[in-house]
Amino acid sequence: MKLHLLSHSGLMGATQCLIRSVTRVSSFCTHASKWEGGGGVSMVQGASRGIGLEFVKQLLEKDDEGHVVATCRNPNGATGLLELKNKFAERLNILQLDLTIESTIEESTKSIRERYGTLNLLINASGILSIPDVLQPETTLSKLQKSSLLLAYEVNAVGPILVIKHLWPLLKAGGGHGTKRDVAVVANLSARVGSIGDNSLGGWHSYRSSKAALNQLTKTVSVEFARKKDPIVCILLHPGTVDTDLSRPFQRNVAEGKLFTKEFSVQKLLSIIDNAKSHDNGKFFAWDGQEIPW
Amino acid sequence: MKLHLLSHSGLMGATQCLIRSVTRVSSFCTHASKWEGGGGVSMVQGASRGIGLEFVKQLLEKDDEGHVVATCRNPNGATGLLELKNKFAERLNILQLDLTIESTIEESTKSIRERYGTLNLLINASGILSIPDVLQPETTLSKLQKSSLLLAYEVNAVGPILVIKHLWPLLKAGGGHGTKRDVAVVANLSARVGSIGDNSLGGWHSYRSSKAALNQLTKTVSVEFARKKDPIVCILLHPGTVDTDLSRPFQRNVAEGKLFTKEFSVQKLLSIIDNAKSHDNGKFFAWDGQEIPW
Repeated sequence: MKLHLLSHSGLMGATQCLIRSVTRVSSFCTHASKWEGGGGVSMVQGASRGIGLEFVKQLLEKDDEGHVVATCRNPNGATGLLELKNKFAERLNILQLDLTIESTIEESTKSIRERYGTLNLLINASGILSIPDVLQPETTLSKLQKSSLLLAYEVNAVGPILVIKHLWPLLKAGGGHGTKRDVAVVANLSARVGSIGDNSLGGWHSYRSSKAALNQLTKTVSVEFARKKDPIVCILLHPGTVDTDLSRPFQRNVAEGKLFTKEFSVQKLLSIIDNAKSHDNGKFFAWDGQEIPW
Repeated sequence: MKLHLLSHSGLMGATQCLIRSVTRVSSFCTHASKWEGGGGVSMVQGASRGIGLEFVKQLLEKDDEGHVVATCRNPNGATGLLELKNKFAERLNILQLDLTIESTIEESTKSIRERYGTLNLLINASGILSIPDVLQPETTLSKLQKSSLLLAYEVNAVGPILVIKHLWPLLKAGGGHGTKRDVAVVANLSARVGSIGDNSLGGWHSYRSSKAALNQLTKTVSVEFARKKDPIVCILLHPGTVDTDLSRPFQRNVAEGKLFTKEFSVQKLLSIIDNAKSHDNGKFFAWDGQEIPW
């Protein structure tokens, strides 16, 4: 598999200097929250640009207290995050995380556990649709490549679920503590084109199947959380077509008024997250709150 | 990825001696069928045992004319197929095909093109759920392994779609010619646990997500075939819980009367296939003909 564009840059050392050394929490399974500040602790995975970066910005701006952990593959090159770091100082913590390297997920989890011992919100905002010379959204079955199918699956479906797996104990410990919600929220960025029932155009095989798989994995996880009465709600979100690097090559077919700014889309999605209740667990919402069929 | 259990056995030579040498068809995109016999040409991928082997048997028995191409990873070890070969002689052709090695799909396609020039039915019957020491259906998120997710996806979702990709021109050339149907049929063996909407138990993450992805890929392909007015109908089939090697470790929770023989299940599924019409394209049917939600 061609993963060179996704390989991390050995920046763990540089990244970790952003993390204050704090007392280690003796057991990460404890329900007692270590984090005493208000506003809760949120994590945005895939935060260097686009929708992920906008989530970080709005989460930091919406109150004066909440802390945000922003992860990306290359923190030193994440100029948008570094600008926010200048403004929000210790309320923003930037960690190196490459979805395709599970040890970096474990390292980020360890850092969050040591600093906060708890997590109230996890947003998996990363996603790939096209990478020049590596991954192209398929226009026909005859162009389907095994390498594209596997790469999209690894990044769009496998990675986010591994992040949830490792952060599960911290989300369970966090619940809604310090926030206005009763529960912790896991919000996975999906896409309407991942809906099988809504698929009337065809094409984009690798992306569509990876998002359908993400939907199934998220639903599967949500069932276990509910059965164990964990204070965690998992939802899937369709942000609309948003003016970001991901959508840029495909914007010319978007109807007038249907290309959203990232500010608008994230505002809508945060409203869904902030109002998430137990009965929303395992559901798939569009930016406007409408449920999307599987 | 641990794929040693799925690697092929270098049996291409042994297999190809089963294929009669015939005149090469000059262009595989031709609509003119090269196959002049009645009963049509069917292919069962994953035919060495279980449901796949039963499909081969019933397809050969249901009339005196139709030919069947049966593919598996290791034809020399496929005792069930070799017994059928003794009985049905030239009406059964056994080819080596390993879903994880695309060149073997291409080789099988070439053999079918040269012998028949056309195909009327493709059944993707292969599937993995558990492999001792390699793949275990997950009982909880905390046991999720990246290698399991990728392996199940490669075998259960990617492989079948690559088979369709290569056989598409032959299916298009075949349509319903020589059969009682108006169309060629692609039938992918899915499973009810692949349904996201029907997922109320959780667990089995790797299997569930691979089948949801297969559903999405099949739907995507079906849209393109319909748009191009190709005489091909793609359907997804849930065989029920059938008494095979795949289900054996998990049969103790099956309600009385709900564990089907493979004879019964395949009889039901063949009835769905034989009656497939254009309006069934892209749909997901249980053994009893009921549609399953995505």
